[in-house]
Amino acid sequence: MNPRQSPASPATRAEMAARFVGRDITSMRDFTTDELLFVLDLSEEFEGSDEPRLKGKILANLFFEPSTRTRLSFHSAMARLGGQVIGFADANVSSVSKGESLSDTIRMVENYCDAIVIRHKFEGAARLAAESTHLPVINAGDGANQHPTQTLLDLYTIRRIHGAFEGLRVAFLGDLRYSRTVHSLIESLARFNTELVCVSPPQLRLPGDILDDLFERGVRVREEFNPTILPQDVDILYTTRIQKERFPDPVDYEKVKNAYQLDRKALSIYPSRVTVMHPLPRVNEISPDLDDYEGAAYFQQAKNGVTVRKTLLSLVLGVV
Amino acid sequence: MNPRQSPASPATRAEMAARFVGRDITSMRDFTTDELLFVLDLSEEFEGSDEPRLKGKILANLFFEPSTRTRLSFHSAMARLGGQVIGFADANVSSVSKGESLSDTIRMVENYCDAIVIRHKFEGAARLAAESTHLPVINAGDGANQHPTQTLLDLYTIRRIHGAFEGLRVAFLGDLRYSRTVHSLIESLARFNTELVCVSPPQLRLPGDILDDLFERGVRVREEFNPTILPQDVDILYTTRIQKERFPDPVDYEKVKNAYQLDRKALSIYPSRVTVMHPLPRVNEISPDLDDYEGAAYFQQAKNGVTVRKTLLSLVLGVV
Amino acid sequence: MNPRQSPASPATRAEMAARFVGRDITSMRDFTTDELLFVLDLSEEFEGSDEPRLKGKILANLFFEPSTRTRLSFHSAMARLGGQVIGFADANVSSVSKGESLSDTIRMVENYCDAIVIRHKFEGAARLAAESTHLPVINAGDGANQHPTQTLLDLYTIRRIHGAFEGLRVAFLGDLRYSRTVHSLIESLARFNTELVCVSPPQLRLPGDILDDLFERGVRVREEFNPTILPQDVDILYTTRIQKERFPDPVDYEKVKNAYQLDRKALSIYPSRVTVMHPLPRVNEISPDLDDYEGAAYFQQAKNGVTVRKTLLSLVLGVV
Repeated sequence: MNPRQSPASPATRAEMAARFVGRDITSMRDFTTDELLFVLDLSEEFEGSDEPRLKGKILANLFFEPSTRTRLSFHSAMARLGGQVIGFADANVSSVSKGESLSDTIRMVENYCDAIVIRHKFEGAARLAAESTHLPVINAGDGANQHPTQTLLDLYTIRRIHGAFEGLRVAFLGDLRYSRTVHSLIESLARFNTELVCVSPPQLRLPGDILDDLFERGVRVREEFNPTILPQDVDILYTTRIQKERFPDPVDYEKVKNAYQLDRKALSIYPSRVTVMHPLPRVNEISPDLDDYEGAAYFQQAKNGVTVRKTLLSLVLGVV
Repeated sequence: MNPRQSPASPATRAEMAARFVGRDITSMRDFTTDELLFVLDLSEEFEGSDEPRLKGKILANLFFEPSTRTRLSFHSAMARLGGQVIGFADANVSSVSKGESLSDTIRMVENYCDAIVIRHKFEGAARLAAESTHLPVINAGDGANQHPTQTLLDLYTIRRIHGAFEGLRVAFLGDLRYSRTVHSLIESLARFNTELVCVSPPQLRLPGDILDDLFERGVRVREEFNPTILPQDVDILYTTRIQKERFPDPVDYEKVKNAYQLDRKALSIYPSRVTVMHPLPRVNEISPDLDDYEGAAYFQQAKNGVTVRKTLLSLVLGVV
Repeated sequence: MNPRQSPASPATRAEMAARFVGRDITSMRDFTTDELLFVLDLSEEFEGSDEPRLKGKILANLFFEPSTRTRLSFHSAMARLGGQVIGFADANVSSVSKGESLSDTIRMVENYCDAIVIRHKFEGAARLAAESTHLPVINAGDGANQHPTQTLLDLYTIRRIHGAFEGLRVAFLGDLRYSRTVHSLIESLARFNTELVCVSPPQLRLPGDILDDLFERGVRVREEFNPTILPQDVDILYTTRIQKERFPDPVDYEKVKNAYQLDRKALSIYPSRVTVMHPLPRVNEISPDLDDYEGAAYFQQAKNGVTVRKTLLSLVLGVV
């Protein structure tokens, strides 16, 4: 479905919006494909129009683990729409240091705000938070588990550039084993008629259960373990950082650490522009000489992050 | 006096409000009983009505010692009324790390804001801050000394639930020696015709000077040192945490640490609902199985904290 | 030129304001003398009038190094004009801890805001930030290099008190070698017909290149190394802290550490009021007994900091 060719009717729109009021956004798995496309459509509609829809609303930005990017992006989204933000950037200044349970912290904070964004190092923390309050809770990353707004901004970026998901060939490079960003995006892209190429060192290949699931669903997916050549015939290169701490033997890390570096020269094999994405922060996975390459989309991703977060906050707070 | 039966006349109201303009709120001892009741009455009136009364006003939230609960509560109160908040959550990011005196910090900050909230580990810090500026200063806790907004929210919670203070029987459980929350609330409740039961290990009984003062004023108060039975015939159980570091001998701590844990079973001795209060955060003083007990008031206390702080900020900023 | 005697014509005013739209404020050296005076004139005009000119605008306050004073001053300036502020107070909660380059951080943050204020321990950080984004960047201190808003507030304070710069005799006391505040203010004052007296221990005299530059430009400047007597016939004493870590030999530090302490007694040598300035925080350079001396201007400096920052933010955001 190309949403621009078949826009939702006004009735459907109100109905879809109603489904999001007060809702928790803890995992991409909670989204039907219709809902996912609705969020993207609405984000396109809202992009660049900043009415003070959220005036009088308060967001609690609870970052039990630091993350400037995501925290400031939510703060900006709220501020752009006239809302206010309370919270903390660091668990050390929070009452968790006094031994308070997460559930108690959430039940305290729910008295101070209208919606909660939570970042926490433990998997499942966002769902636990959601169960502790009647307010909408948005997961801004819980350990290696989920980070749904990252996936939505990735999807939004892809559709903004390529118009639709159908028929796209997307290569994922680097650490495909531990990257929650990759797992979640793959799961979402697999809902559409896309072709996936997984390029990684053998130690960091996509987990078996995710691969099995893709095969079962008939998704076109292939793996490549040769780091010296980039896959041919792809529309998008989505690259991630390989973290040293994933390797028990440092020698193994040294062998692969620079294997998936992208630069102008590496991309010269492609006859036409390829889209380059990265969740950021990057260290050396993408050379600065690509920053003005017309396919470079990684800073656009950051911009789109504010857009989709504005949409989600408006939806769960019921002001669409 | 039941304030709902004898509401203040408009003239009196304006007169009372005028007393608070620009005023420092450093200790409950500064409040006359009339003033205390006025704040509670006004809080009831303001509860749930969030006009942007504080638009254009700036609060400096100066937390030299971390406290998520109190800091976010003040931030929320200000934001709910349309005001803005500047400040810090932690002395490490403040200029005190450069050796600046508290007085100088306050005289700097007074140029940036309209009111100051201060939390500091040293007793008397709030009063020193108040003496350093012509702006209103609200004490958000200075060491073991005072935390007047905690007392006001406790009083507000009690009156919301029980209608009036007169005739109430209130039991305090746990650490009655070091808890500023308990000392301040007892002093305030003693102004009304209440009956107080102090239940603690002998090492943590209420300080002698407070007891002497209560006896002199003819307040009905009794002590109990047997931790295994809860007091009969009470309306409210106000419990606090017993902190390990208060005991020179760890063996003594082990003996009493779980003595005052409240749960459903413990409360089954009461024929009718009893109100359970706690300043939070709790560790294991109150079992989660009490969270949906209809007398559980501890999360309501957090909610009421925002309400009384909205009232106080409005009063000292002169916009009532 | 006394700007009050020859106010800019409306046409000139619009023209001058246009020069600042979207502009980076990284160094005082970027200001022409006309521009400098324009900022001071506009600050006088704006002082005390807080229209919500910056409503809907977002400032990113990026403090890679803590500074309560400057951070809260910018936050207050933005809030006074109806704008919002995002950011961090401390590099530890930022993605620099993940190894991200400053340039990448800025290119991320530019998607979240309309202007950026940066404080960083490395010289040149502000200029690098400015080169990384099309948004206006204001330097809030980069190492020992520049802190232009401090210089502007110092100049504003001097002109508010003395009416004009011409003919003023200004003495600088203390650490003239390492103080960026002193270097920058001297450079600016030298543009006008002022007379400068540099009083310091020999180890901390003004750097030779700055002195050479002043002599070349024909500025009247003299040095004094006797710490026991204050210079005669001056209008302003601008004093700074002498930091222990500047002295390889602690004995040398001990000799001079208290040499330039100002108090009532020290100032009694002046027949009439002298203006006492300090960038704050002070430790013991100025005795508290001077705080109510009518020439004490150091807390007024903090107040004027908000004023000039309001002006600069309005200018670079194009809402004058």
